[in-house]
Amino acid sequence: MVKENDLVFLYGDERRNFLLKPEKKRLHTDKGYLDLENLIGKRFGEKIETNLGAVFYILRPYLYEMIMKVRRKTQILYPKDIGMILTRACIFPGAKVIECGIGSGALTTALANFVRPSGKVYSYERNEDFLKNAEKNLKKNGLAEWVEFNHCEIFNEFPQKCVDFVMIDIGSQWELVEAAYKSLKGGCRLAAICPNFEQLTRTVFTLEEKNFINIETMEIFVRKILVRPGKTRPEQRMPSHTGWIVFATKIIP
Amino acid sequence: MVKENDLVFLYGDERRNFLLKPEKKRLHTDKGYLDLENLIGKRFGEKIETNLGAVFYILRPYLYEMIMKVRRKTQILYPKDIGMILTRACIFPGAKVIECGIGSGALTTALANFVRPSGKVYSYERNEDFLKNAEKNLKKNGLAEWVEFNHCEIFNEFPQKCVDFVMIDIGSQWELVEAAYKSLKGGCRLAAICPNFEQLTRTVFTLEEKNFINIETMEIFVRKILVRPGKTRPEQRMPSHTGWIVFATKIIP
Amino acid sequence: MVKENDLVFLYGDERRNFLLKPEKKRLHTDKGYLDLENLIGKRFGEKIETNLGAVFYILRPYLYEMIMKVRRKTQILYPKDIGMILTRACIFPGAKVIECGIGSGALTTALANFVRPSGKVYSYERNEDFLKNAEKNLKKNGLAEWVEFNHCEIFNEFPQKCVDFVMIDIGSQWELVEAAYKSLKGGCRLAAICPNFEQLTRTVFTLEEKNFINIETMEIFVRKILVRPGKTRPEQRMPSHTGWIVFATKIIP
Amino acid sequence: MVKENDLVFLYGDERRNFLLKPEKKRLHTDKGYLDLENLIGKRFGEKIETNLGAVFYILRPYLYEMIMKVRRKTQILYPKDIGMILTRACIFPGAKVIECGIGSGALTTALANFVRPSGKVYSYERNEDFLKNAEKNLKKNGLAEWVEFNHCEIFNEFPQKCVDFVMIDIGSQWELVEAAYKSLKGGCRLAAICPNFEQLTRTVFTLEEKNFINIETMEIFVRKILVRPGKTRPEQRMPSHTGWIVFATKIIP
Repeated sequence: MVKENDLVFLYGDERRNFLLKPEKKRLHTDKGYLDLENLIGKRFGEKIETNLGAVFYILRPYLYEMIMKVRRKTQILYPKDIGMILTRACIFPGAKVIECGIGSGALTTALANFVRPSGKVYSYERNEDFLKNAEKNLKKNGLAEWVEFNHCEIFNEFPQKCVDFVMIDIGSQWELVEAAYKSLKGGCRLAAICPNFEQLTRTVFTLEEKNFINIETMEIFVRKILVRPGKTRPEQRMPSHTGWIVFATKIIP
Repeated sequence: MVKENDLVFLYGDERRNFLLKPEKKRLHTDKGYLDLENLIGKRFGEKIETNLGAVFYILRPYLYEMIMKVRRKTQILYPKDIGMILTRACIFPGAKVIECGIGSGALTTALANFVRPSGKVYSYERNEDFLKNAEKNLKKNGLAEWVEFNHCEIFNEFPQKCVDFVMIDIGSQWELVEAAYKSLKGGCRLAAICPNFEQLTRTVFTLEEKNFINIETMEIFVRKILVRPGKTRPEQRMPSHTGWIVFATKIIP
Repeated sequence: MVKENDLVFLYGDERRNFLLKPEKKRLHTDKGYLDLENLIGKRFGEKIETNLGAVFYILRPYLYEMIMKVRRKTQILYPKDIGMILTRACIFPGAKVIECGIGSGALTTALANFVRPSGKVYSYERNEDFLKNAEKNLKKNGLAEWVEFNHCEIFNEFPQKCVDFVMIDIGSQWELVEAAYKSLKGGCRLAAICPNFEQLTRTVFTLEEKNFINIETMEIFVRKILVRPGKTRPEQRMPSHTGWIVFATKIIP
Repeated sequence: MVKENDLVFLYGDERRNFLLKPEKKRLHTDKGYLDLENLIGKRFGEKIETNLGAVFYILRPYLYEMIMKVRRKTQILYPKDIGMILTRACIFPGAKVIECGIGSGALTTALANFVRPSGKVYSYERNEDFLKNAEKNLKKNGLAEWVEFNHCEIFNEFPQKCVDFVMIDIGSQWELVEAAYKSLKGGCRLAAICPNFEQLTRTVFTLEEKNFINIETMEIFVRKILVRPGKTRPEQRMPSHTGWIVFATKIIP
């Protein structure tokens, strides 16, 4: 049963879908409007109709939707890259992780989801506007409780030590390598996302100098397939670049 | 400090690395041998040398290594696909999920990691040999406690109801669509992995008939980049197919 | 020196470029206008300016530009696919080849270019409007002389026999397999382009039945890289599907 | 009818196939032997059997087979990249083109095929061993007549001027940019293949300085699909990198 503060994924079709809460508010779509209060008491999976009879389904919100629907003030990390980070980084219920910068809170949403109930995400962002927006996104997604939002720029070190994972998502990635080193547990991993080739090489060479090993760089592609009777084919255009992801593990020489 | 039952990722280089526990056992490598007991009391991140002076680093085990190092009796789901499932499926600490079949336990490892501490993975496998092997893998990875290992073939329904996610990883994926429907909470999602095109279309068309919506199919690629001074380039060969992943959400008509 | 009937590739930048002849005509661009007569007598490689001082360079027309600039009444075959056909099919100066249908004449342009001076492209198209448009495109590209334009639908056989190559580019590719067989020299190859998976499998299975061997199917991707000081990266979106290309060779059982 | 000096593509299956001439020679395969003289007088498309009854088909040699079967003393350019060059460069019957270095003669084979009957490929190679091997490959492919084989290293300029296309395939691509400029007709294009990222950026930046425009960089991927009843899927591994191809057009400032 949908309750008052539940997050709902309202799905009409691929282009008409919304991540929202059942507030006293009217949602206007090009297929008519819905009074969102009416969601309360419905079962997940049921439908609801607009004043014009268009059907929307009341679905459960997934990480994917939470990520894609964050209000964006920056480029975001996409699920394809976040998924690879979740399998390569040391994330688990109870993990302590650092993220710098927070951007719009897309990766933060995923990290917070998976460090629950006893872990914490320490997020840093020098742009206050971005930080506030990210905080709003995390609150909407019901995950702000597992995030510490810090408005500052980090140069030499993070206050947290012995963390399980550090994510570097700033423009000059190599400048945070030493700070990340100081914060990571021995034998633990960091990740950095590098949109440009010059950032990538500089970051990797810095990691090699600063006692990181098992350095691996990769890019991830997702291609959707449209399955339809007699007309099955891949989509005609796809994203071909977001950034290269670098992973590296701290050693104690 | 490495303790007796800790899982350790012993890393020499890209081709020489091991996921193991510090037992009374000698590890033989082409660079000499190591007595694994000697790992105890070392710090993660430190190195250890073979009798021939070759260096191995004592790193923390990540999901990635746990997945890639499962003892394989079947094809496994790879991190690229598992990552996408983690972001698209309803996985969180406390989630109840069903997986059929278990294969070698690669995905199971990821699911168990992220439903901790209060969730559960209900795994089904008709091949006893595979099931036992998967159980061993999960035990080694320290995650068996969050998995229920069931040796049976499912036709009509799973005993569990109101689960958050169902993973279908058998050869005739479409045959489990109805059973999955009965077990899923309304508005929740399933995933199926389809290595062949004919499986894919049949599965999608069955989902469309059986009250699933928001059906999306995709394939994931990972390309590694070798970053080296003056010689940076992508690797020369890459995996180009494991399977298509289908996601679909249950509605209550 | 540019002469009156020369085809010219007038290049301002990536989005402002034109394939045209130096006629008595004024070309209007968002950067001002040019009187195209003034191109006559200029050298290729030189620049010309609009009335507003915007610079355009007078470049030689390449196959690539001729293909991409055909006036389109249909989907076209793209250079990535045409290039693969040129290396896998038996095309050479003097070759006789059949193409059905002609579409907008994109592949025809490439085939005509490379069967010159003594070969011929026999093109078939059931849609008169498409055929006329393709003929205009070939005339503009200066290659119509090597093409025979036939307005008819082929069911059982093409009049030409002993040809070096047959290209099938219609919606029900499998229906032309027998006609192609009758026209090809023994040991020679055909190609078919299949946008959908169902077309692909049906075509391949028909080829297997009808005395073709060495059947290979592939898809081609092109990813552009933007090389810029400190900001080198792949383009952010790319085409991800045009069609699968099938090649097969005729045997005499 | 196969004649004495004809090149034949003898095809057993995907792994057993040969590009050869019907000499007085015995071909040994793991399925028995064949006396190649017996090919003479057979029709293309017919089969021939080994002493053990294994079937081989007598197919026509295509550019693709000629390229893939060159005897290799170097890395070669692959059909995927050659195809893109054929559509983007100014190649046509009668074209004069320069290639430096020749490598094993793979691209040379394609260029020679398409500049026939009145054009010429001027090939340069500093390694005499490579050059002789390439010459043998071109002779076997019946295309040596359209190639001039030059054993020398080029620094400042090529003797040929006013050529239609220059291909740069050496390790320090940027060092030939000026020589290429001097040889190209105005408004004509060069191509360079860059296996490494550092070569790529240096080459592009040099081109930008030296009066080239319309500079485009790309990489090409080919993925094969295995079409089989009920088991259609892409191949499991594919080539993921050969080199980036750069195209650029000469202007006269």
